[in-house]
Amino acid sequence: MSGSFAAMQKRFDPFGVLIIAFITSVGGGTVRDLLLDVPVFWMSDLRTITLILVTSVFAMVFKSIEKNFKNTLFVFDSFGLGLFTIIGVQKGINADLHPFIGIILGTITGCFGGIIRDTLLNRIPLIFRKEIYATASVVGGSFYILLKYYTSISEEINQTFTILLIFTIRTLAVKYRWQIPKFYRFYGDGEM
Amino acid sequence: MSGSFAAMQKRFDPFGVLIIAFITSVGGGTVRDLLLDVPVFWMSDLRTITLILVTSVFAMVFKSIEKNFKNTLFVFDSFGLGLFTIIGVQKGINADLHPFIGIILGTITGCFGGIIRDTLLNRIPLIFRKEIYATASVVGGSFYILLKYYTSISEEINQTFTILLIFTIRTLAVKYRWQIPKFYRFYGDGEM
Amino acid sequence: MSGSFAAMQKRFDPFGVLIIAFITSVGGGTVRDLLLDVPVFWMSDLRTITLILVTSVFAMVFKSIEKNFKNTLFVFDSFGLGLFTIIGVQKGINADLHPFIGIILGTITGCFGGIIRDTLLNRIPLIFRKEIYATASVVGGSFYILLKYYTSISEEINQTFTILLIFTIRTLAVKYRWQIPKFYRFYGDGEM
Repeated sequence: MSGSFAAMQKRFDPFGVLIIAFITSVGGGTVRDLLLDVPVFWMSDLRTITLILVTSVFAMVFKSIEKNFKNTLFVFDSFGLGLFTIIGVQKGINADLHPFIGIILGTITGCFGGIIRDTLLNRIPLIFRKEIYATASVVGGSFYILLKYYTSISEEINQTFTILLIFTIRTLAVKYRWQIPKFYRFYGDGEM
Repeated sequence: MSGSFAAMQKRFDPFGVLIIAFITSVGGGTVRDLLLDVPVFWMSDLRTITLILVTSVFAMVFKSIEKNFKNTLFVFDSFGLGLFTIIGVQKGINADLHPFIGIILGTITGCFGGIIRDTLLNRIPLIFRKEIYATASVVGGSFYILLKYYTSISEEINQTFTILLIFTIRTLAVKYRWQIPKFYRFYGDGEM
Repeated sequence: MSGSFAAMQKRFDPFGVLIIAFITSVGGGTVRDLLLDVPVFWMSDLRTITLILVTSVFAMVFKSIEKNFKNTLFVFDSFGLGLFTIIGVQKGINADLHPFIGIILGTITGCFGGIIRDTLLNRIPLIFRKEIYATASVVGGSFYILLKYYTSISEEINQTFTILLIFTIRTLAVKYRWQIPKFYRFYGDGEM
């Protein structure tokens, strides 16, 4: 949906919106599966594609929902980030990789779709400049790993806690306008 | 060739033109093969590379052909789109995937090279804004699947029909300036 | 490090700098390994990741080193290009591919990280416009192949010679401001 809205802002035609929405949704997980050399998740199963189609068309028909349902969208988006992060970490662990690589894969799953979307829309990915988004994913992924290996709580509770944590970080970040301090531009803007 | 010309417009040096041409040509098929986890088509065979080299150098030497042979280029380009779409659909079917995924792979094969080219040239991919191109690929791919599974016509005739259909759609689209209606920019241009 | 500095110029936050540095460093080798369908090099081993983390943090803390150590950075960068090119060529040969494909893989390993970095930073990759960089990689890769198949010198000496050659080309290119002649913009700047 964030893909659909971003594309609509730039006056794309419906078909372009659909392609952008598709790439935003599956981009992160696709990169993760390619890196792991496992079957790409959306190719063996029509449900993912169908879901994306439905939400995109929904977003196009009810363009005005962006304003009215901004909070609902934020909730879904944060929940999605939590879920995507966990899936990425799990897939890494299942492939017998170091937990730290698992956290990277979780962040890729959660954030790369947005990076690709912004790049295609010809803007510098927001995540690089204002990214409590990626930070929430890294913190959540690390938290999940800690609970998994150093406590005996069940997988379900761990996942719930992780999603709640990521959700809380993002909510607080937006509410209190958290922002990681930026570098000042010390140098000229010439090409390197 | 479209890659070569696009790059030359931006005052690239010959070597840069070559790299852009290469990425434009093989980009879509490479993404498809990576998704399918089959050997990447241009790596086991020098003919693809050689063909790209020859046409790029040709395009660089005869820069003026862009004007004079615009129609010829359009014919080749549309023919290529048809062929690429069919190859993508076939590779998907051969991997026992759902025909709908096959159509997506066909569109990726036909269109992703141009998306990558435009992104590298720092412009919003044309296909997202004016994309009878992608539409022709989707319609052609669907048509090919329909004929394949619901009729008994031979593979050769099916392929010929599909390429003709894609060619016709693109020709009519350009001639009558078809364009899918765009979204108006309802919202501000702020970042999301 | 080039990734870190490029990102800092654009006023990114530290975390964004880290992600850009990571993508710049491993981008080329990742694309190469995906194309070859071999395990992605940085995933089975924490050393690569750790090295990138350390150099990025180092670059962030000592921002001023960019000015004072410009020459040192250039030496490291050129040495890296030589090493990356050789690794790419070798991986191609080990996969029983044609040496020419090996040279392409060497160039991809050496240059794609920078292409991805520039694309993410929303600028046309420098390499397409001023690319003694890619040329040095292609020439070096070809030289390595020639020595390997047509002479009997040892692998170590071959690698040393190749790295020296790439280093020399880059140094001379910068010193004498070599530049491959560009195409003039013969056509309008309209969209294709």
